[in-house]
Amino acid sequence: MMNRRPLILVTNDDGYQSKGITSLTEAMRNLGDVIVFAPDSHRSGMSSAISPSFPLRARLLRKEEDLTVYACNGTPVDCVKLALNEFTERKPDLLVSGINHGSNAGISVIYSGTMGAAIEGCIFDVPSIGFSLCDFTSDADFSSTMEVASKVAKKAIEEGLPKGICLNVNVPSGAVKGIRVTTQTQGKWVNEYHRSKDGAGRDIFWLTGNFENWEGENENSDEWVLANGYASVVPVKIDMTAYDFLPQLKEWKF
Amino acid sequence: MMNRRPLILVTNDDGYQSKGITSLTEAMRNLGDVIVFAPDSHRSGMSSAISPSFPLRARLLRKEEDLTVYACNGTPVDCVKLALNEFTERKPDLLVSGINHGSNAGISVIYSGTMGAAIEGCIFDVPSIGFSLCDFTSDADFSSTMEVASKVAKKAIEEGLPKGICLNVNVPSGAVKGIRVTTQTQGKWVNEYHRSKDGAGRDIFWLTGNFENWEGENENSDEWVLANGYASVVPVKIDMTAYDFLPQLKEWKF
Repeated sequence: MMNRRPLILVTNDDGYQSKGITSLTEAMRNLGDVIVFAPDSHRSGMSSAISPSFPLRARLLRKEEDLTVYACNGTPVDCVKLALNEFTERKPDLLVSGINHGSNAGISVIYSGTMGAAIEGCIFDVPSIGFSLCDFTSDADFSSTMEVASKVAKKAIEEGLPKGICLNVNVPSGAVKGIRVTTQTQGKWVNEYHRSKDGAGRDIFWLTGNFENWEGENENSDEWVLANGYASVVPVKIDMTAYDFLPQLKEWKF
Repeated sequence: MMNRRPLILVTNDDGYQSKGITSLTEAMRNLGDVIVFAPDSHRSGMSSAISPSFPLRARLLRKEEDLTVYACNGTPVDCVKLALNEFTERKPDLLVSGINHGSNAGISVIYSGTMGAAIEGCIFDVPSIGFSLCDFTSDADFSSTMEVASKVAKKAIEEGLPKGICLNVNVPSGAVKGIRVTTQTQGKWVNEYHRSKDGAGRDIFWLTGNFENWEGENENSDEWVLANGYASVVPVKIDMTAYDFLPQLKEWKF
C-alpha cells in the first residue's frame, strides 16, 4: 500500500485553459496530488508529434500544496516528455490526458494528441489513460466524463497497467449506461476535404469528413458501445509489431 | 497480372526537396508511374499529426508522362490524405515514404512522420512502406537504401499486404549484409533534454537523448539487426488494441 497520496500528471491537447482539463484536474484532486503540465494553446490532432527544431519552455502558473500547473509551448508528447524528464521529483503513479473535446474512438486513436500523451506516459511505464467526450458542442457537459474518469483512474492506480499498455477511454454525450471494455473499431474517415477558394481564387482544402465504420454491429467495438450509450475503455499497445504476419513476411524472398 | 504500370505514391517528412525523396523517387520510377506528394518543407517528428485548423494547398511542380510532383503545406499524413482524396485518379498500387534521413527503428515508429505517412496509406488499404536510413550525417549515401527499397517495394506490389498492416524498413549505414524480418525493439529514449538559457537568461529545453534498448541481444529485434549490418523490415499494425489484455481488463469492476 502507498503511504503517500498518489502523484498524478495531467495533460491534454486542447491547452491548459480548456474546460476539459479543468474538469479532469478537479476529478483527480480527489485521488492524489496533481501536476498539470499542458500545452499553452490548442494542439488538436497532433498525434505523437515531437518538436526537435525549437526550444521548449515551461511557465509555472500555479503552485499549491496539492496542485502545480505549468503551461508549455510544445505538443502533448513534448509536455509529457519534458514533465517526466525535468519537472517531476518522482515518477507519477498515474498520467491522465484530456478530457478531450470530441471523440477519439476507432482509428482516431492514431491522430489524437490526447492519446499521444497517454501513449508517451506508457512509454515511461506510468499507468496512463486518455479521456475523451464524444461531444463537439462548445457548451459540452463534462460531468459524466468526470465520474467515469474518477472510476477508471482509481482502478488504474490500484491495479496498475501492464508494461506497454495504456487506456483509451471515450464517453458518450448525455447519460452514461455503464463502462464497457472494447476494441478499436475498424474503419476510416472518408470525404475528408471541403474544397474551397482563397481570396485570390486558388484551391484550398479544409479537413472534414465522416467516419466509415467497417464493423457495423460488432457489440465489442468502441464505436458500437458509444452509439449505444456506454463509455468505452480500449487497452492500447505501444508495440505496433504485427506478430501474426511475421511468419508469412519471412517467406518473402527479397 | 496488371495490364498497366503500377501507380506509386511517394511522400516523406523531410520535404519534397530532400535527397532522400529524390533517391526514392528515382528507385520507384523503375517500377511504375510515380506521383510525389510531399511536404513543402521539413516536417520531422510529426507522427500521424493532421491539420484541422488551417487550409491545405497543393502546388504542382512537375508533370511528365510517368512522374508528377506536388508540394503541400501540410504534415506527411495531410499529404497522404489530400493526395488520395483529391489528387489521384485511381487508388495507387503502392505508397512509399522516405527515405528518411535517420533511423525510425524501435519506439521511433511512434514519433516518425515517415511512418505516419505509411500508416495513413495503410488506413486507405494501399500497400505502404516507410524507408529510413540510419545515418544522420548531411552527406549520407542513400544508394544501398535505394536497392533495399527497390527489392521490398517490388515484393509488396507482387504480394500485396494484409489489410491494416504496413512495413517499417530501416537500413544501416554502410554495406548491407541482407534484409531481415524483425520486431519493434522494446525500449525508450532517455536524457531527452539539453537544458540551456535564452538571451534573457530563461530556461529553454532542446530535445535530444539516447535510445535505451531493453532487449539487448534479441536477434529478432530491429535495433539488433541494424547494429549488425542488416536492413530491418518490421510489419506494423494500425489496430493498436491490446487484445491479450482484454480478458484481464474485463475483470476490473468500475
